[in-house]
Amino acid sequence: MHANPLLIIAASEIDSNLYYATGFLAPDAFVYLRAGRESLLLMSDLEMDRAKSQARVDTVLSYSAYEERARARLGERPRLVQVVAELLNERGIKAFDVPASFPLEYGDAFRGLGYAVTVRPDPLLPERVIKTPQEVDEISATQRAVEDAVAAAMQVLREAEVQHGVLHYQGTALTSERVKQIINVALMERECVAQHTIVACGIQACDPHNQGSGPLYADQPIIFDVFPQSSRTRYFADMSRTVVKGRASDGMKRLYDAVREGQQWGVEQVRAGMDGKAIHEGICERFAARGFETGMRDGRMQGFFHGTGHGVGLDIHEAPRVGKVNHLLQAGEVVTIEPGLYYPAIGAARIEDMVLVTADGGVNLTRFPKDLEL
Amino acid sequence: MHANPLLIIAASEIDSNLYYATGFLAPDAFVYLRAGRESLLLMSDLEMDRAKSQARVDTVLSYSAYEERARARLGERPRLVQVVAELLNERGIKAFDVPASFPLEYGDAFRGLGYAVTVRPDPLLPERVIKTPQEVDEISATQRAVEDAVAAAMQVLREAEVQHGVLHYQGTALTSERVKQIINVALMERECVAQHTIVACGIQACDPHNQGSGPLYADQPIIFDVFPQSSRTRYFADMSRTVVKGRASDGMKRLYDAVREGQQWGVEQVRAGMDGKAIHEGICERFAARGFETGMRDGRMQGFFHGTGHGVGLDIHEAPRVGKVNHLLQAGEVVTIEPGLYYPAIGAARIEDMVLVTADGGVNLTRFPKDLEL
Repeated sequence: MHANPLLIIAASEIDSNLYYATGFLAPDAFVYLRAGRESLLLMSDLEMDRAKSQARVDTVLSYSAYEERARARLGERPRLVQVVAELLNERGIKAFDVPASFPLEYGDAFRGLGYAVTVRPDPLLPERVIKTPQEVDEISATQRAVEDAVAAAMQVLREAEVQHGVLHYQGTALTSERVKQIINVALMERECVAQHTIVACGIQACDPHNQGSGPLYADQPIIFDVFPQSSRTRYFADMSRTVVKGRASDGMKRLYDAVREGQQWGVEQVRAGMDGKAIHEGICERFAARGFETGMRDGRMQGFFHGTGHGVGLDIHEAPRVGKVNHLLQAGEVVTIEPGLYYPAIGAARIEDMVLVTADGGVNLTRFPKDLEL
Repeated sequence: MHANPLLIIAASEIDSNLYYATGFLAPDAFVYLRAGRESLLLMSDLEMDRAKSQARVDTVLSYSAYEERARARLGERPRLVQVVAELLNERGIKAFDVPASFPLEYGDAFRGLGYAVTVRPDPLLPERVIKTPQEVDEISATQRAVEDAVAAAMQVLREAEVQHGVLHYQGTALTSERVKQIINVALMERECVAQHTIVACGIQACDPHNQGSGPLYADQPIIFDVFPQSSRTRYFADMSRTVVKGRASDGMKRLYDAVREGQQWGVEQVRAGMDGKAIHEGICERFAARGFETGMRDGRMQGFFHGTGHGVGLDIHEAPRVGKVNHLLQAGEVVTIEPGLYYPAIGAARIEDMVLVTADGGVNLTRFPKDLEL
């Protein structure tokens, strides 16, 4: 238990903790205070009615009413911090916690007014890592949209023709941009907003952050990484797949088999009490045992040089991490398992599923097939 | 001129100032320092190459190199603030400015290390309000996508049939949700990401923040407000229109004419040196002269109770405001002019164009028609 009240001033559309705490989505900043057992909001007149009907808080107060009181006291138009101070004074609060991301401008202003402001370190709301069954359903619903969208893109790749090694579809060269658009539009049709969708081919796929551009080639790996947010529920999903249109080289097949086997092994390790670091290191060892070493080579990182996974929920990357740091998985966490291997001389592959942690093991929330060649 | 260096630690995808300062878009936080005439970035290994080729800064330094130095000095894995301190110490910087939104956690940590950290008040980069011709082109390009998308939705309304007062299309009732989806998908096809698109009918339209839900009705006003961001250029556009499928009531026609005339008058007032407050007050007076008063009535705000406009650029709402506060418009600003009237007993309308301020007058960047009845 935290003895101090908690104050958040943010837009819940950007600040997922505030959305989690209130269930109220707003594009403009508002004031949230949790003091003892009471949670309350200070809302603008425009949002009062909606907040009263939608927000999961005990009390919704009118910002303009406190603004009026502050104006009467100060004899001038009050700043936001002075308005909040009216509320704090009314409740007898002289010390409170704020998130790590709390704006320094406000922190300084509250301290200047004599309040003791303490940063509560991340994770601000540790209970967020444990998903309720409803949250799992919402993540899964977003994932169904991802699978529909990626299936539509894969169908285009299947129907594409190869001309001089370049994929063509409906008469023109098929590009990363066009395939990303097919995916993103299919997602928007399902009320999911995708940004930074990755469709990266060949050498581009060897850089895990390259989103891909230009023509797609036959016989080369194409990595898909798709991670939209539902605009209805605000829950993300995250999936990666790797395919080759045409024939993969023998080296690429061996690389893909290593990733597929390592990823599958990782998924099978998931259960409450398991250390995420052990999963990550186990995958690294399995890769090394097949000859896929990790390190700098020819001036760039090659092998498996990112984490194995991360939590997914109201943020695309949230606690816990599955990687180099110890973390005992807990029932109710939803994590990705997404190892990859990246070698410019051979190719690249990443396979990513989302897995719900339970006491008995992992429940794979992802249903999409994992075949390499289309 | 600011004597102090400026430090920003943020993700440029969220922090539009950082994107403006660097031209470099990244989903994860990175470090930007401007000291004297030099601007530099401290980047993760993953983003180094991309930053070197894309970022408009003088110097791109390796975060991990400074992390290594901090580790050697401290004998333990350094925190981010300690890594940045290596850079500050190397440059002899003991005092610096940060944005108002700078995380309190970092502010406290830097001060704990002995640095003098000062909040530089908003607007952090005042030059952002003056758009370059290229920025105007990018805003206009997003606006063309808005117009295509809204035209597609209007076409659906035109083709819709009225059954018992409810619009039907392709055999089912036409809802706000479906029309928003048509708009959002058309925008995604044009690489624009729309969120919170408003298609609000009848009584819902009388609340400017209501995004609309459920069936659309004939003979009632439907307010469209569409404001996507280009995922390619990051520039927003913003447009509102009001239509009636069928016949508008006489009261609704008078209301619409008042909004249309007031909005047109407002657009015509735009020029460098004009006070935005005078435009806002002029529109209020024109509304009142036609009998459309503003104030609380029957427990809710009615009339024209929001600002006349706002700047548009890398943020959907940015400086300047056109409203109750004095602001002399400057050549190169792009502002919306978007008055509205809202009366549950009559109806509601809002019309919004984007206007470029020039010395000679305003250049309307919006081309979409303003006919009430479809």
